[in-house]
Amino acid sequence: MRFVIARDEFLKGLQTASRAVGSKNAIPVLSNLKLDLTEEGLFITGSNNDLTIRTMIPYRINDLEVIRDYKEGSTLISSKIITEIARKIDSPEIKFDVIDSTIAVISDNISEFKINCIRPEEYPDLDLSAEGTSLVLSNADFATLIEQTAFAASTKEQRPILTAINLVAELGTLTATATDSARLARKTLTIDPNVFFTANITAKMMMEVARLAEGTSTIEIAVSEKKALFSFGRTVVAARLLSGDFPNTKNIIPRNINYSLRVNSQDMIKAIDRASLLSIERENVVSLTMSENGVEVSSKSSQIGSASDRLTNFRYDGQALSISFNKEFVLAAIRALGSPEVTLAFVAEMKPFVVRNDEDDTVVQVVTPMRTY
Amino acid sequence: MRFVIARDEFLKGLQTASRAVGSKNAIPVLSNLKLDLTEEGLFITGSNNDLTIRTMIPYRINDLEVIRDYKEGSTLISSKIITEIARKIDSPEIKFDVIDSTIAVISDNISEFKINCIRPEEYPDLDLSAEGTSLVLSNADFATLIEQTAFAASTKEQRPILTAINLVAELGTLTATATDSARLARKTLTIDPNVFFTANITAKMMMEVARLAEGTSTIEIAVSEKKALFSFGRTVVAARLLSGDFPNTKNIIPRNINYSLRVNSQDMIKAIDRASLLSIERENVVSLTMSENGVEVSSKSSQIGSASDRLTNFRYDGQALSISFNKEFVLAAIRALGSPEVTLAFVAEMKPFVVRNDEDDTVVQVVTPMRTY
Repeated sequence: MRFVIARDEFLKGLQTASRAVGSKNAIPVLSNLKLDLTEEGLFITGSNNDLTIRTMIPYRINDLEVIRDYKEGSTLISSKIITEIARKIDSPEIKFDVIDSTIAVISDNISEFKINCIRPEEYPDLDLSAEGTSLVLSNADFATLIEQTAFAASTKEQRPILTAINLVAELGTLTATATDSARLARKTLTIDPNVFFTANITAKMMMEVARLAEGTSTIEIAVSEKKALFSFGRTVVAARLLSGDFPNTKNIIPRNINYSLRVNSQDMIKAIDRASLLSIERENVVSLTMSENGVEVSSKSSQIGSASDRLTNFRYDGQALSISFNKEFVLAAIRALGSPEVTLAFVAEMKPFVVRNDEDDTVVQVVTPMRTY
Repeated sequence: MRFVIARDEFLKGLQTASRAVGSKNAIPVLSNLKLDLTEEGLFITGSNNDLTIRTMIPYRINDLEVIRDYKEGSTLISSKIITEIARKIDSPEIKFDVIDSTIAVISDNISEFKINCIRPEEYPDLDLSAEGTSLVLSNADFATLIEQTAFAASTKEQRPILTAINLVAELGTLTATATDSARLARKTLTIDPNVFFTANITAKMMMEVARLAEGTSTIEIAVSEKKALFSFGRTVVAARLLSGDFPNTKNIIPRNINYSLRVNSQDMIKAIDRASLLSIERENVVSLTMSENGVEVSSKSSQIGSASDRLTNFRYDGQALSISFNKEFVLAAIRALGSPEVTLAFVAEMKPFVVRNDEDDTVVQVVTPMRTY
C-alpha cells in the first residue's frame, strides 16, 4: 500500500473517521483507523463498536488530483498518531508508504515518521450495509430535529433508554422525542407516508452525526433491526440501536391550559440568568410569579440574599400563578425553540408546563416544575 | 453607605480587586471585597493575605460623572456575588445602598438584589503603605521582564523559593532570575544606580501584577522588608515576599561555548513540535543531532515508532554533536526570547546549554539536557 495524498483532504478524512474512536477502547484494535485504498479511492474507517464512521477520499475531486503515485492495499494505524501527523505536517502533499505490512512511513520534504502499523485482518468485521426502511431528509431538517430535542435526553447511565432520541416514522410523520423524565422535547417532520420504523439512538451519537453532516445537502437514514445507517456526502455512519422500549410519552403534553405567558425570548433568558445568580443553595431553582399586573423572576438563598427581575414586556392570560423550576431546563427549552418570542403555558402550579413557539406547532418542550417548600 | 455608579467602571474595579480573592480562603472574611466610599472615591480592596489589590474609582473621570447621589461609608460583600451582579446587570448605572449595615440592595430599573453584607470592622488590617526603596519602570519594560522569566519558575511547592522570581537591584542593574533547577531564565534592565534591593516574589503574583498593569504607562515598585508594593494607574498591589535565600545562580550561565547553532525561531519551534509527536513514552524528550552537514530534530518510541525533522536553514559552528532535552523547556525559552532567530550554544553533550538572541544580551535562557540512554 502506497500513496501520495493532498494533505488537507487526508486530514479532513482522518478527523471525520477518528470521531468514532474513543480514548479508551474495550477492543484495543479499535484505537486504530482502517485505511483501504481501492479502485474507488481511500476509505478511512473508525469505530468504537457502537458507532462506526467510514469516509472516502476519491482519486480526483473535480479537476483536482487528490491521490497519485499509488498502489492499492490496506493497513491499520493509530487514529491519534496519524491524525496528529497529518495536522502537523505543513506541506500540500503527504506521502504514505507501508513497508512489510508493519511499518508506515509518512513523510514530506522535511519530516519523516516511521509508525508501527497492524495487518488489516486484525480489524473486526463492521456492518456498513444499508438495510431496512430508508428515508431521505434535507440536512437542514435533520439538524433542526437534533438541535431541538437532543439536549433533553438524559446524560446519566442509570436508565440507558433515556439517553436516546426516540425516532418514530409512521403515517407521514417522523417524530423525534427525548426526555430525561423531568423534561421532554418533541419535534415532528412531514415525510413519505410509506416509511415506517422505530429507532432509539443515543442523543450523543445523533449529535455526532449532525455535526459530521454539516455542509452536506441531504442525509439518508436506513433503519434495520440492530442499527441505523446515515449516509451523506462521501461518509457513512452506522449507529447501534439501543435495546429496550422508550417510555410512552404520548399523553405527556398538557392540553388544558389555564394560564399562559408570552414573552420576548431574550428578555426571559436574561431575566432568568440574572435572577438565578442566587439559586446556588437550592441548585438552579428559580421562581416565576405572574399576574396580569406584572411578571417577576426571582431566587432566594438564606445565606446570601435574594434576587428579583421584572419583565416589562409580556402578555399574560389567567389568574395569578407562582411556579418554580430548574432554570437550566427552561433556558434550554427557550434556546432550542430559536424563536424571537416564546409562550409558557401552564395547567396548574405543580403540573408539567409547556414552552412553545406559537408560530411553529412542529416542536414542543415540556418541563416539570419543582417544589420550593 | 450609598451610591449610584457607572456600571462599566464598577465592574472593572470589582474584577481588578477580585483577582486577589482565591476560591478557598483560609480566612473566610477574605472571600469578601471591602468597599470604602471616601472623599476621594470608591476604594475596592481584595486580598488572599499574600496578595492584596486595592483599586480606586474616582467621582469623575475627565468630564464624566462616575459616582453620584452618594453617602460615604464602608462595607464587606462577597467578591463572587457582587462581581457577578455587576456583570449581569445591563444598565449603564447601578444603584448600591447598604441598609442597617447588613444588607446591600443593588439595583437598576428592572433587577433588584438584596445581598447579605458584613460590617467593615471584620476585615483584617492590610498594609498598603509604600515603604523602603522604590523604583519606577515603564510598563513595557516591566511586562517584558516578567514574560521572559516567569515561565521558568517552578510550579511545585516542594521548594517554595523556586516558585519565585528573584529581583536584585544593584549598581544600576535590575536582574530578574527564575529557575526550577532544570532550567533558568534571566533578564536585566538598566536602572537608577542608587537603588538597591533584593526581593523574591512568586512568579504567579508577578504575572498577576503584569496582567493588571496592562494599559498603564509606568509602574512603581517599592520593596520593604516583608512586601513589595506595585503602584500603577489607580491600583496598588501588595505582594508578600517569600522568605529564604534564592539559590546562587551567578555562575550557572555557561561561558566556554564549543558548539553553536543559529536557526529561525519558527522553523525550530515547528520542527520540535512535529518531532515530539512520538516523545510520549519518555515524556517530552526530543533529540537534536547537529553537524555542519545537517541538523535533525527527532524522537523515538519503541511502541509507536520514530519521527525526524530536518532543518534546512541554519548556521552551525563546531564538531558533530547530539543532545537531548525536554522539548517544553526549549520551546518556552525560544518563545520567551520573541526574536526571529535564536542561537543555541553548547559546552558539551551533558552540560547545560544556552538559548539566546544574539541581538539582545539582556536576556538569557539556560536548559539542562537529558540523558536518552
